[in-house]
Amino acid sequence: MVRASTQEIAAFVAAEFPQTPVQILEVGPMSARVVHEVGTAELRPGGTVSGPVMMATADVALYVAILAQIGIVPLAVTTSLSFNFMRKPAGDRRIVGECKLLKLGRTLAVGEVTLYSEGLPEPVAHAVGTYAIPPDAQAPRRG
Amino acid sequence: MVRASTQEIAAFVAAEFPQTPVQILEVGPMSARVVHEVGTAELRPGGTVSGPVMMATADVALYVAILAQIGIVPLAVTTSLSFNFMRKPAGDRRIVGECKLLKLGRTLAVGEVTLYSEGLPEPVAHAVGTYAIPPDAQAPRRG
Amino acid sequence: MVRASTQEIAAFVAAEFPQTPVQILEVGPMSARVVHEVGTAELRPGGTVSGPVMMATADVALYVAILAQIGIVPLAVTTSLSFNFMRKPAGDRRIVGECKLLKLGRTLAVGEVTLYSEGLPEPVAHAVGTYAIPPDAQAPRRG
Amino acid sequence: MVRASTQEIAAFVAAEFPQTPVQILEVGPMSARVVHEVGTAELRPGGTVSGPVMMATADVALYVAILAQIGIVPLAVTTSLSFNFMRKPAGDRRIVGECKLLKLGRTLAVGEVTLYSEGLPEPVAHAVGTYAIPPDAQAPRRG
Repeated sequence: MVRASTQEIAAFVAAEFPQTPVQILEVGPMSARVVHEVGTAELRPGGTVSGPVMMATADVALYVAILAQIGIVPLAVTTSLSFNFMRKPAGDRRIVGECKLLKLGRTLAVGEVTLYSEGLPEPVAHAVGTYAIPPDAQAPRRG
Repeated sequence: MVRASTQEIAAFVAAEFPQTPVQILEVGPMSARVVHEVGTAELRPGGTVSGPVMMATADVALYVAILAQIGIVPLAVTTSLSFNFMRKPAGDRRIVGECKLLKLGRTLAVGEVTLYSEGLPEPVAHAVGTYAIPPDAQAPRRG
Repeated sequence: MVRASTQEIAAFVAAEFPQTPVQILEVGPMSARVVHEVGTAELRPGGTVSGPVMMATADVALYVAILAQIGIVPLAVTTSLSFNFMRKPAGDRRIVGECKLLKLGRTLAVGEVTLYSEGLPEPVAHAVGTYAIPPDAQAPRRG
Repeated sequence: MVRASTQEIAAFVAAEFPQTPVQILEVGPMSARVVHEVGTAELRPGGTVSGPVMMATADVALYVAILAQIGIVPLAVTTSLSFNFMRKPAGDRRIVGECKLLKLGRTLAVGEVTLYSEGLPEPVAHAVGTYAIPPDAQAPRRG
């Protein structure tokens, strides 16, 4: 039961965050998958992907998973985001973020995001984040 | 490929931590499941389970999952443990912790633990923890 | 400007949490200092203090610092608590928790707690926690 | 007792991370202060500063504080970084990160970073991070 489709959320994100290098791959029940382009600007010395790229990916993945559940609510804000960095990301692969929501309450959402170098099996990082949802902001059910 | 069985780890934990109220339910590849008894001492006003019970459960779940992979290494120590509390636990059910290791390096292990009131589907809390493994402490492979 | 005194909060905590081994040392503006007794039950093999003792100490320190600011609000609940364990605590000293609130919003409080073995200068652990404050629960100003 | 000066670290950072928008303001014993420029690229809709800017600032602040203590060790890597976002940053002010190291061990450093909109008293975010220091990598004492 999803209240906003991948296309609706992608259109919203493209309009609101025109500069974002993160694209939505898919949304599902309490889940989302996004990808961050990796070019010269995203690399660190040693050919690895920078931490801020991980943060942008995790943050958007959480936001998209929440929007898919509650509908387009522009006012939700990140209140915490915690990362464990586990492996050096490949410099020539995009970063994929897979989000799974653990809780979607009326005013607080909690989710985890596992981050991969695209196509490789072992996660490069893991994040847990919380979003505050403005009271009464949940969109009316479509239909 | 597990280097210590549920029974071996249970025997080690019982000998080293005779007072622990946490029991091991099972271990698997990069995973473990444990349970914490809940009695009067574990309750808080309002009939909910205390935060320290969650911490004990998560910490043992991680430790057991690591021991199962690397063998009995008494010197591994927790370096971080982060919790999100999501739902009020039931006061009359044990707390179950399901650990999944995200990384098992030579000197650092990272894992997540989802905590449940036994028999209920929605997690009450989620934890992410790291353990420092002493260099060269990994037990020789059995057999 | 504190809305509940050390004595008022101590009386509330003693009534609500009669079993707690944590005592309040003092409260101040956006701050609190508490202490956890350490006896046989709080020790781990090797003579160190258990992680759950740290959690109980940090949680009460945060709660007390919040109560001091907003007045006696029994319904505030911990939503996250993150620990870094830095040094082995002494087995024969109490654990002191010093809390400093970083934010006290209408519905969310954030604070950090530095944990010490009493009388020793180097912290044994550091925690950051968040509390959800029920809307409209802030006590009327005294006086 | 600092083993690398602000100038030495700034020269190292400029050479290794030529694209970084973070500048070092000062280093001290177990501490550092850095600043992140804020221009159009760092803004989010609504005129606020993006989360990745906070992460870049916190990460560099920690790295610089560690380098100041142990000397120029290019191989130290971030292993965890946790954020609480507390207030909306001003869109027209730089982000300042003030780092205080809580522990500097042989292989692990832990520090906290308080993030401000430059010139404003209330923190916009708070971070806690850990760095793994390669064994035997600590630079020989200067002099």
